Amino acid sequence: KINIAFFERYYADGLDAYFDLIQEADRAGLIVIGDCKRGDIGSTAEMYASAMLAEPDFANLEDLTGPDAITVNPYFGLDGLQPFIDVAREEQKGLFVLVRTSNPSAAELQTAKLESGMTVAEFVARQVENWAADPTLVGHSGYSAIGAVVGATAREEIATLRAMMPHCLFLVPGFGAQGGTASDIGACFKPDGTGALVTASRSVIYAFDDMKYVERFTSEWEKCIEQACKDFVAEVRNAVPK
Amino acid sequence: KINIAFFERYYADGLDAYFDLIQEADRAGLIVIGDCKRGDIGSTAEMYASAMLAEPDFANLEDLTGPDAITVNPYFGLDGLQPFIDVAREEQKGLFVLVRTSNPSAAELQTAKLESGMTVAEFVARQVENWAADPTLVGHSGYSAIGAVVGATAREEIATLRAMMPHCLFLVPGFGAQGGTASDIGACFKPDGTGALVTASRSVIYAFDDMKYVERFTSEWEKCIEQACKDFVAEVRNAVPK
Repeated sequence: KINIAFFERYYADGLDAYFDLIQEADRAGLIVIGDCKRGDIGSTAEMYASAMLAEPDFANLEDLTGPDAITVNPYFGLDGLQPFIDVAREEQKGLFVLVRTSNPSAAELQTAKLESGMTVAEFVARQVENWAADPTLVGHSGYSAIGAVVGATAREEIATLRAMMPHCLFLVPGFGAQGGTASDIGACFKPDGTGALVTASRSVIYAFDDMKYVERFTSEWEKCIEQACKDFVAEVRNAVPK
Repeated sequence: KINIAFFERYYADGLDAYFDLIQEADRAGLIVIGDCKRGDIGSTAEMYASAMLAEPDFANLEDLTGPDAITVNPYFGLDGLQPFIDVAREEQKGLFVLVRTSNPSAAELQTAKLESGMTVAEFVARQVENWAADPTLVGHSGYSAIGAVVGATAREEIATLRAMMPHCLFLVPGFGAQGGTASDIGACFKPDGTGALVTASRSVIYAFDDMKYVERFTSEWEKCIEQACKDFVAEVRNAVPK
């Protein structure tokens, strides 16, 4: 999961680096999620869908590969997402719609209660499942090209959201640096152990600066990061239903 | 108002062109709004705020000027917006928070009713006004560095949102190509005629393709666009309270 914001910070050079990193990850056989959180009205969403999710189709870029999936923001409603869904379907790619984010004040809007008794996040979840269940988007695994972002920090809400979106893979941020723990994320998975991609960024990327690893590997930053990855995988494995 | 999506479509070259256009608009003495609709969790929002709103501060970019204001998405709540607010305050720039967008399915989420009787858009409006009213953000005009996006197509809701956000300039899209008319936008202004920036994009940019102008100016596209601008200004002037 590559967060484009940290590349946009370096303007056009950063965007070049973002695509370079996608190429490198692709050559390494990895599935790449472009974490770009785009969303806009239909005509603009078409532009974002082409820019962020489609394979680059310009003469000087034709050898570039785009990410396999991206994150998108649901505030505009369906016509803001439709162009992304169209590209995902055509190019066999994926979307993760923000449903319940992992940040401290996410609850302000996302857990506000609607008259129907649902929270805003549950309202979005119901729409996401409706779109995701479209048979032309569901693969042989039973999961759709449309998934959902559900933060590990939303402890109390995860089980409900998992039940509401049976066709959606969950992209689960907020583990590690943001405070989510293994016991929080068990409910993101289905009983068969599938259904969630748990991500860790800062706790792995900055492991070279974490005393736990520095004490063991001193300045060998690659080893710090490798060990942080192993620790992360072990923690998540522990949380997955057997 | 420059919509970055139409530039990102051309990858790094597009981003260069986006900043080139900002420089040109700045040289022409125009106030520039970067329509980028960013939003993310705090640490990432900091990166977006630096990339999208701050003055570029890298050695090879130090002569570049950034936009004077940008649009931001409220789905993450306050900590997603705080870094943008911080940059706006420090650099004397502005924000327009998406409150009620102009697209056809905006109502799905934005007009869903909360238990409190407010719609989601009104709930966001209340928060935006709370942030906007901070005295360190309000200028001598009485308006804050934090404004709100309120679409011209939200006929029934504009007056309520105007009353809820007295410190906010409104950025009003949806006029013209999207169907908003002069009679819809009057309520975006305060009785003294201030308080709203009405935008038109497609109805002006594509005037060279509009029979109304082509019949008059044939292939002189500059004249088509100039006339479309004049017509737009006259229509808006007509809608502003005297």
